[in-house]
Amino acid sequence: MLSIVALLHGPDRPGLVATVAGWIFKRGGNILHADQHRDSEEQIFFQRIEWLHPVDDSEIPAVAEAFSKMATHELGMHCHVSVSSELGRVGVLVSKMPHCLRDLAFRFQQDELRGEIGCVISNHRDVEPFCRSLHLPFYYIPIDASLKADAENAQLKILKGHGVNLVVLARYMQVLSGEFIDSIEVPIINIHHSFLPAFAGGRPYHQAYARGVKIIGATAHYVTAELDQGPIIAQDVARVSHRHSVEDLIRKGRDLEELVLAQAVRWHLEHRVLVYGNKTVVFD
Amino acid sequence: MLSIVALLHGPDRPGLVATVAGWIFKRGGNILHADQHRDSEEQIFFQRIEWLHPVDDSEIPAVAEAFSKMATHELGMHCHVSVSSELGRVGVLVSKMPHCLRDLAFRFQQDELRGEIGCVISNHRDVEPFCRSLHLPFYYIPIDASLKADAENAQLKILKGHGVNLVVLARYMQVLSGEFIDSIEVPIINIHHSFLPAFAGGRPYHQAYARGVKIIGATAHYVTAELDQGPIIAQDVARVSHRHSVEDLIRKGRDLEELVLAQAVRWHLEHRVLVYGNKTVVFD
Amino acid sequence: MLSIVALLHGPDRPGLVATVAGWIFKRGGNILHADQHRDSEEQIFFQRIEWLHPVDDSEIPAVAEAFSKMATHELGMHCHVSVSSELGRVGVLVSKMPHCLRDLAFRFQQDELRGEIGCVISNHRDVEPFCRSLHLPFYYIPIDASLKADAENAQLKILKGHGVNLVVLARYMQVLSGEFIDSIEVPIINIHHSFLPAFAGGRPYHQAYARGVKIIGATAHYVTAELDQGPIIAQDVARVSHRHSVEDLIRKGRDLEELVLAQAVRWHLEHRVLVYGNKTVVFD
Amino acid sequence: MLSIVALLHGPDRPGLVATVAGWIFKRGGNILHADQHRDSEEQIFFQRIEWLHPVDDSEIPAVAEAFSKMATHELGMHCHVSVSSELGRVGVLVSKMPHCLRDLAFRFQQDELRGEIGCVISNHRDVEPFCRSLHLPFYYIPIDASLKADAENAQLKILKGHGVNLVVLARYMQVLSGEFIDSIEVPIINIHHSFLPAFAGGRPYHQAYARGVKIIGATAHYVTAELDQGPIIAQDVARVSHRHSVEDLIRKGRDLEELVLAQAVRWHLEHRVLVYGNKTVVFD
Repeated sequence: MLSIVALLHGPDRPGLVATVAGWIFKRGGNILHADQHRDSEEQIFFQRIEWLHPVDDSEIPAVAEAFSKMATHELGMHCHVSVSSELGRVGVLVSKMPHCLRDLAFRFQQDELRGEIGCVISNHRDVEPFCRSLHLPFYYIPIDASLKADAENAQLKILKGHGVNLVVLARYMQVLSGEFIDSIEVPIINIHHSFLPAFAGGRPYHQAYARGVKIIGATAHYVTAELDQGPIIAQDVARVSHRHSVEDLIRKGRDLEELVLAQAVRWHLEHRVLVYGNKTVVFD
Repeated sequence: MLSIVALLHGPDRPGLVATVAGWIFKRGGNILHADQHRDSEEQIFFQRIEWLHPVDDSEIPAVAEAFSKMATHELGMHCHVSVSSELGRVGVLVSKMPHCLRDLAFRFQQDELRGEIGCVISNHRDVEPFCRSLHLPFYYIPIDASLKADAENAQLKILKGHGVNLVVLARYMQVLSGEFIDSIEVPIINIHHSFLPAFAGGRPYHQAYARGVKIIGATAHYVTAELDQGPIIAQDVARVSHRHSVEDLIRKGRDLEELVLAQAVRWHLEHRVLVYGNKTVVFD
Repeated sequence: MLSIVALLHGPDRPGLVATVAGWIFKRGGNILHADQHRDSEEQIFFQRIEWLHPVDDSEIPAVAEAFSKMATHELGMHCHVSVSSELGRVGVLVSKMPHCLRDLAFRFQQDELRGEIGCVISNHRDVEPFCRSLHLPFYYIPIDASLKADAENAQLKILKGHGVNLVVLARYMQVLSGEFIDSIEVPIINIHHSFLPAFAGGRPYHQAYARGVKIIGATAHYVTAELDQGPIIAQDVARVSHRHSVEDLIRKGRDLEELVLAQAVRWHLEHRVLVYGNKTVVFD
Repeated sequence: MLSIVALLHGPDRPGLVATVAGWIFKRGGNILHADQHRDSEEQIFFQRIEWLHPVDDSEIPAVAEAFSKMATHELGMHCHVSVSSELGRVGVLVSKMPHCLRDLAFRFQQDELRGEIGCVISNHRDVEPFCRSLHLPFYYIPIDASLKADAENAQLKILKGHGVNLVVLARYMQVLSGEFIDSIEVPIINIHHSFLPAFAGGRPYHQAYARGVKIIGATAHYVTAELDQGPIIAQDVARVSHRHSVEDLIRKGRDLEELVLAQAVRWHLEHRVLVYGNKTVVFD
């Protein structure tokens, strides 16, 4: 049976929970999960609500649409509604390092992540054999500084051609242009190999080593036009000491990067992440 | 303005969220927080809901009472309702080690914990000067194996005389009898100095050292008649290595014990903990 | 250039560090790492020392042998010496779940682990395609309760035939007999999917769920005749809450199991683990 | 019996371990702990070595002195030698928030920290009653921007008058001038309430809240002329979510600050911290 998930946010006011729950109940729906949050400083109401609706699967999209209208027009909420039959279709951009791609691929295989990898694009050929072995469509698009716009256009065309609804930068070492970000029209999740905002930019493990920190981290965030400044979805850390070389930091960091990126992608695909301002609300 | 907090649980069925939220909304209440959980295996519904009600403070208890009736009779829920004016009044039982008592006392002082310590009872005199310095009523009740029942009766009388609504065992090294637990009529929270269920019983740090574990822990749980088997509220852990002696484990453990006990007491006093079966739902 | 690693332990006495370091220095060796530990309760001295020796690679084994004799006869130490050219050759036993095997395989591929997987034996055919794709020798040995001894003999023959110097149980769901453990003559590392000693035995995630713990764990340990009682090498934990089903615990546990097992295998292969009594000293 | 602790560092070369251990052994000393580290990038050798020497307590300082000469002149090492009879004597600077001071005071009381608090100086009167209750010398030195130099001179005089060998900034909200740092002649440890280098400068919890991070931290570091840029000694972190207000971050941060500062002070007082460049080696 299909379930519907709605993500709402907007100005708080009395009766929001009652109206939403009442709308569903009157139509015979059964709420599976409902999670609210109020930002008491900014008076914003956030909700994730998931329910079963006693109609034929074919009628579910119309119910979702009707809910969305009610939430938008009656309650003045931003509303994103999705149906459990809509699966993630992820376009992965990657450079040389395969670990995050490989980890995501296996998590899709064992149904930890809902959906599939639609295509993989890389500016190197390193991960091609791996993609071939899993029958993942692979595209090699080299990046030449002078022709970056052309390369990005090619990427856009491939991603749209595969109908992806999420782009994941799985250790993709190129900066995306503002034009790309504007044109892609689906969210982009990046894994940054540091505990942002510490060590934004290039070579963060080398920066961390030079600074002598005792803990390193990884950060998954939505990509915005400002480099490494987008809304943070997930972070994790690991302890290091003077005994660890830069290579050790990189090795330990790989495990962190996989875990944090997988968590962010999972939350996104399960419609658990709401963005507002430059922050996220994650209904875990 | 007073807020009301209700903790509900009972058999799941459609319309629970709508009915509860609708009841509040119709009476002009404004929901501050609402958090639900469904145990999909056992089909049990859990909810913590906190709201403001537009009536005089003097009328709030009647509103709480009316809500409780509705939830119990109409919805078939177990219901615990409390009003934000009701503060914690904690009776602390402690033996020789002062750290948990001291930590709790300071957290009450700086309003991290809502309420106050009503009295302290110990089978030793070690913490008496500390209690005196903070003007906490202190009672010395030695425990003699042959007269344990008498001692427990004295403890019960003191705790009830001070009107405590929670008993905290802050490293109290005596086992409470089933009679005491039955008679006290308020919840009892204990801090056990291990990661339960590992190392239940006595001298857990020595047990952990002998077993050569690489991580130690602390567990706060409600006390039931079965030693160290009650519902777990909070746990935390710390890494140890072969370099750490039993004394190091004890030292590191003290920090864990304070943090875990304080967290459990805070959650309890904020009405965030629901017990069912031998488990807890914590609406953090 | 080859390095030599010695692991020593025995009764403590003055001059051990000086004698060991002096022996190496007099012969022109250059110590890369030296790490000592004294168990002050039991008066045992532990040391891991790694050094470069200015002789031809072909003469290194003789140097290692000479050191071992000195440590054993002059210092009365247990001594295990290895040369950096000796690589791990791991026999993996696995049942249906592939994640730990897959994780180990990739870590060997990217040289995080020194050596290689010599062979994989399973009582199911699930991981066979994966092994074939990586050209890992795969053996299917079904386990029939009445013929377990025969199956174990077949396993022993294969493992010895491949010259493995370590056996890893990568989620192998059969209990090894005492005879197997005695006969294999190389260490065996198991990953247990709980925070030992909590939840030893079968279905630990179900046990953890039933007990309502707030933290789950995984434990890598050397296998001894007593089930789940061998010396612990590595442990790690993850937080869970009432929101997590048994399936969530299993999913979160997979990540823990991979990380903890990989760490234990890495430490073992880098000769960082000393066993004494039922405990380990890990020179990280 | 007194023990001697030496902290050495300098250019690596063969024979350092053998020479140091040999020197001690020839004089009848018994090494309790020896820990080495080689920075293989910069070819620097680091060692912490602690030993018992079979002479009268009165002769121990001469032994320490002789060792120091050997290490400096024969081995070309920087050498800091101390005797276990020398205890920490800490001058604490604090502003309004008492928690770190209180925590340090109790850790000294229960001998977790070796030594004592020599005096407390504050630019506010908030912690005065607490200091009086523990008989800690308290000095109120208000800071007026235009007379900051005078205030710092008064502070210096008090700290030197009490013979402190360590200054701890226990949530001291004033920036120390370069002149103060140059003149004090003992190390200064600060607790910064963020995970440096993220959120250096003022109001880090507000910065963290605004950035929407999912983990907050605390950092203990030695103070240098550059604000929040000194060598990091210890760091720790805690998870936060969208549910946590700035006030929650501050509350959770207090626990982190206490633990991290206490750990850094303990390591420093046990002579476990070596500074080189802008980093630390911590022999834990």
